[in-house]
Amino acid sequence: MTELRAPKLPQRPERRVKLAVVQMSCTDVLDENLDKAEAFVREAAANGANVVLLQELFENLYFPQLEREELFALAHPVEGHPFLERFAALAGELGVVLPVSFFEHAGQAYFNSLAMVDADGRVLGTYRKSHIPDGPGYEEKYYFNPGDDGFKTWRTRYGDIGVGICWDQWFPEAARIMALKGADLLLYPTAIGSEPAEAGALETDRMWRRVMIGHAVANVTYLAAANRVGQEGDATFYGRSFIADHCGDYLAEADDRSETIIYAELDLAKARSARAGWGFFRDRRPDLYGPLLTLDGEERTGR
Amino acid sequence: MTELRAPKLPQRPERRVKLAVVQMSCTDVLDENLDKAEAFVREAAANGANVVLLQELFENLYFPQLEREELFALAHPVEGHPFLERFAALAGELGVVLPVSFFEHAGQAYFNSLAMVDADGRVLGTYRKSHIPDGPGYEEKYYFNPGDDGFKTWRTRYGDIGVGICWDQWFPEAARIMALKGADLLLYPTAIGSEPAEAGALETDRMWRRVMIGHAVANVTYLAAANRVGQEGDATFYGRSFIADHCGDYLAEADDRSETIIYAELDLAKARSARAGWGFFRDRRPDLYGPLLTLDGEERTGR
Repeated sequence: MTELRAPKLPQRPERRVKLAVVQMSCTDVLDENLDKAEAFVREAAANGANVVLLQELFENLYFPQLEREELFALAHPVEGHPFLERFAALAGELGVVLPVSFFEHAGQAYFNSLAMVDADGRVLGTYRKSHIPDGPGYEEKYYFNPGDDGFKTWRTRYGDIGVGICWDQWFPEAARIMALKGADLLLYPTAIGSEPAEAGALETDRMWRRVMIGHAVANVTYLAAANRVGQEGDATFYGRSFIADHCGDYLAEADDRSETIIYAELDLAKARSARAGWGFFRDRRPDLYGPLLTLDGEERTGR
Repeated sequence: MTELRAPKLPQRPERRVKLAVVQMSCTDVLDENLDKAEAFVREAAANGANVVLLQELFENLYFPQLEREELFALAHPVEGHPFLERFAALAGELGVVLPVSFFEHAGQAYFNSLAMVDADGRVLGTYRKSHIPDGPGYEEKYYFNPGDDGFKTWRTRYGDIGVGICWDQWFPEAARIMALKGADLLLYPTAIGSEPAEAGALETDRMWRRVMIGHAVANVTYLAAANRVGQEGDATFYGRSFIADHCGDYLAEADDRSETIIYAELDLAKARSARAGWGFFRDRRPDLYGPLLTLDGEERTGR
């Protein structure tokens, strides 16, 4: 009897990527924040990073704590934007993939947006935050139109990368769609901190991590979040930026107050192999998922 | 100046439910398993449980380890089923909500099914497992048609309860749909254990828990899983049944080998209030979720 053997395969291609996640505090001086972010990106690249994740709206204080008409002036169109070109050039110079969060003004609309810069400095496109929070200390519905372009996974020099923005991170739908579109890595620039007393002083950090760890496992993808630190008015932004692997194990974690960079080596081919083996994307039942396209689980006809 | 106050509310109604989760080992003798399950349900009810969760296919060994034509004979139609009536009567006698897993034969099809019994002994309906795994030691695609009735949330005497079956627990779509349909509590009868060497002897238990904890947080729902224990051939079923709250905190956990019942008191009204406050179900974007109804993230027209 001949022993049953698996067919011979070409050696699995390694697809190693070094990811850096920056955690910093911000001031109300644009240039200070931009210079600090640039210095962190340069340091990460000097340490061998291929992909660098900066936090949400690193250009300024987290202004949606307040609802102030004059703060809409912080927004700019993509065309002629005050710092997007600078960071695209930086990414090209250093050869790193760099998602860049910014406050976008487009026509009469305003978006919480992100430009995806490939390692050659080319802007692959922009993504507008889809899920907009609203509550004490996070008055984002005052400023931002809900994004209109849907979830995107970008083919970059260093892997297929999906990026959601902050509140998007709580929605399994967003993570799943980016994974369906091929994401090997999910990135979330974030600004989250303490809740004011009127919100019951809820401690959200463990839920914040758990829900994203759930996405990593459900989609068998690497996942990272960059969050700000520091005191801004009554809010303490709690950092705790992290990088997790496709099993939901932490590869790197920052604390709740340090300005720092955390790093991890990702093996995208290994995760891709595990993803096929698990079979989640073989066994999904889109024919049964219609209720996901409703607000209350009730599918309606004639609308 | 008058101090701003929130409008006066009627006192929040408490909606307390005691949940029991049974973890047991099984043999190849039907009556032994049924008697043991009944004894556990009686014990749970004696200890004040309102809802009792038994594991998947508790009637027998986990037979999908093998692919054997003759094992289809274990399946029975709902009508005249050998033990569904017995467990429905038991639920009615004890006044507990009791989901009952069974191997269903229907026409020429076979399903991994569950009958939902309300606390008055009435069978509210059945659910057929939607996501069917397949891999070494878990050859379910040999036996089970993928379920055809979609995800259900049942209005029971003790809350609105969604039940998925085992592999369903890995799919955020299933949890989300049950939550959209009003679930205050998600229950998962399970049979999961060690992976055989050919599957790389992967240790799955931490992923298994993480993905469900992710569902609890994303949907702000209570969640519990009942898993079997014991050695069956080469497989060691690893128990670790648990009950989590709507923040993903563990309320009760079993170990990896004991036959036991774990209990927790749930406050469904508290979770419902937190669910509204978080705003996830306010901020979902069904208009952007079309790719969830595809296998590869690409929406097609004309199909």
